[in-house]
Order: sequence, then structure tokens, then C-alpha cells
Amino acid sequence: MKIEIGATNCLYPMPTTLIGATVDGRPNFLTIAHVGIMDLGSVSLGMAKAHYTNAGIKENGAFSINLPSVEMVHETDYCGLVSGRHVDKAELFNVSYGQLKTAPLIDECPISMECKLVKVVDFPKHDVFVGEIVATYAQEAVLTNGVVDYGKVHPLLFTMADKSYWKLGERFAKAWSIGKALSVK
Amino acid sequence: MKIEIGATNCLYPMPTTLIGATVDGRPNFLTIAHVGIMDLGSVSLGMAKAHYTNAGIKENGAFSINLPSVEMVHETDYCGLVSGRHVDKAELFNVSYGQLKTAPLIDECPISMECKLVKVVDFPKHDVFVGEIVATYAQEAVLTNGVVDYGKVHPLLFTMADKSYWKLGERFAKAWSIGKALSVK
Repeated sequence: MKIEIGATNCLYPMPTTLIGATVDGRPNFLTIAHVGIMDLGSVSLGMAKAHYTNAGIKENGAFSINLPSVEMVHETDYCGLVSGRHVDKAELFNVSYGQLKTAPLIDECPISMECKLVKVVDFPKHDVFVGEIVATYAQEAVLTNGVVDYGKVHPLLFTMADKSYWKLGERFAKAWSIGKALSVK
Repeated sequence: MKIEIGATNCLYPMPTTLIGATVDGRPNFLTIAHVGIMDLGSVSLGMAKAHYTNAGIKENGAFSINLPSVEMVHETDYCGLVSGRHVDKAELFNVSYGQLKTAPLIDECPISMECKLVKVVDFPKHDVFVGEIVATYAQEAVLTNGVVDYGKVHPLLFTMADKSYWKLGERFAKAWSIGKALSVK
């Protein structure tokens, strides 16, 4: 038995990301957890139109998605508190570039992805930027047998209901596997 | 220093969901973790066009998003292993309805959302269904002071790299808050 709690978005926790873009010719970073996966190679960012970063993504057709670890919670939260209009947030990080020269990457983040903008889906107060991943970079320390191991990434998870950051817990089952024991007609 | 690992989607972990729809006049459920948040009230599902469920969502303009707990991992994984073309997956659950009579809800899931389809974004092999949340239902046991507490929901998180399910760890910091201590020019 459940109770109705209004039209509340409960699709959480979501991975917290630092979105990199070139805005007014300079690297800038914005904290976003309203992200998504469209198909295996395409991701989305739901970004309020008021953000400084949006114009840079549109102008250059490129952005990065950097996954901070829980150890970077102060810097990550800070990049959601202040605007690149007023503060040079790139000062917080070592910044480098991969294939796309307008998608700044944060060296300290264990994972960074470069994305080419392929679509903008328009919402009343938000731009949803859809990007195709063109290259991904990982710190060797977060790989196990060459594959990203989230138990080593220590991703920063976000919930809106209580405006909180969470750690990832334990891996406990294999997908497309553990359900095989069940059977219904 | 990072190494390139190819154009790999690393935007994980994602919350695992059971998507409910009416297909061929019957309730059906499909396991999807390629989800997203567009704006606060709108969510997306990235669903391969080959799935049985897609036609039902298009026909009725409605779907549900049910968040299973880790205790439901067998049923959840199973619903990603078999097709509603061949198996009546609704047999696994107690099914009810809210406002939308074509968006079946799973009573056992601690959280369920009813969504009205507002847009389909076309990808080569995927339909991305964008839904507006019209009503949300929660088990009282997962609320703390009337707000959803993910520490009580025990959401089932998914990573693609190692095809695994994970538990949520501890809540450890407040968003839009912990970063205030930092300051750069």
C-alpha cells in the first residue's frame, strides 16, 4: 500500500557530474546531476537556461562530462553554487584537452568523457543537451582488468528530496544473470 | 594522468527501474537503467526499438516508472531477461492503477511514478520516451518526515561496465551547502 506524494520526481540517485565547456573563450565547469542515457553512446544534460554554460555548449557544439569522486565533494558542490560569470572555476582544477579543443577535462576526476553536441531538446526553462561520446579517459587506478570499476571510482551520487550526496555501496549481483533462477509462465 | 579507453559511456551508476505499460491490452514491465532527468518534472527512458513495450507506450501515451529495492533484484533482473511477447511478467507482482489507466504500478516497489508521454526523441536503434510525471506514490516506510529517504528505499543501482547491481552507500554531505567553505577569485 502506497500513499500519493504529489507529482514528485523520484528518479534518483543520479551520478553527480562536472560539465566542462568553453564559455567566452575560457574553460568553465558546472555541477549537474540531471543527466541521462539516451542510447549506449549518447547522453543528456538537463540544464536550466539561466546557466552561464549553456551558450558555450551551443556555440562550440562540445562539452565534457567529468565524474568527480567523493573526495572532490567540496569542489563539486562549489561549482554548483557559483556562476562562471563571476568566478573562474577552472582555477580549482588541472585542466587538459583531448580531441575536442573546446571540451575542457578535469584531470583530478577519475573519469572524463568528451562529447559532441548532436541535439538540443527544448523545455520551458531548460535546454536538454544530447551529446555523442567521442572519447573517454580514465585514471588507471580506477580500472580492474582494463574495465572501469565503480568501486574504485567512488562516484558522488545525488538525491533531490533531501539535497544530499551519497556514496556508492557494495556490488552484490550480476545483471542479466541473477534473475535466471526465476521463471513464470 | 588518465588513459584513453575508447568512446565508452561511463555515466553510471544509474537507478534501475521497472517500466510499466499496457501492451496489447495487458500490463507489462520492462527493466531499464538507461533513464534520465530532463527538467525537474520530466524524465526520459532510452529503450531499444526491439522491445515489446515501446508500441504500448506510443499507443497509450502513458507509462509508469517503478523503483525496485535491492530485495527485488531477482524479479527486476528477470524482467530484463524475458519479453512480454512470450511471458506474462505482471504475474510476478501485485499490480494497481492510479490516475492513468494504462500505466500499471507495481505495489511491491517502494516508489512508483505515473508519467504522461510528451515526446519521443528518435535515435537509430532506440526510442527515447520523454514523460511528464503526473503522480507519485511511495510506501510510508520509505518516508522520513514526509520526504522520500533513499536510505530506506534501498534502490538498485546499475553499472554497464561490469553488468552489475550495486547498493546505495551512506549519505555523507548536503548539496548546495558543503561547498560554501571553498572560495576562489
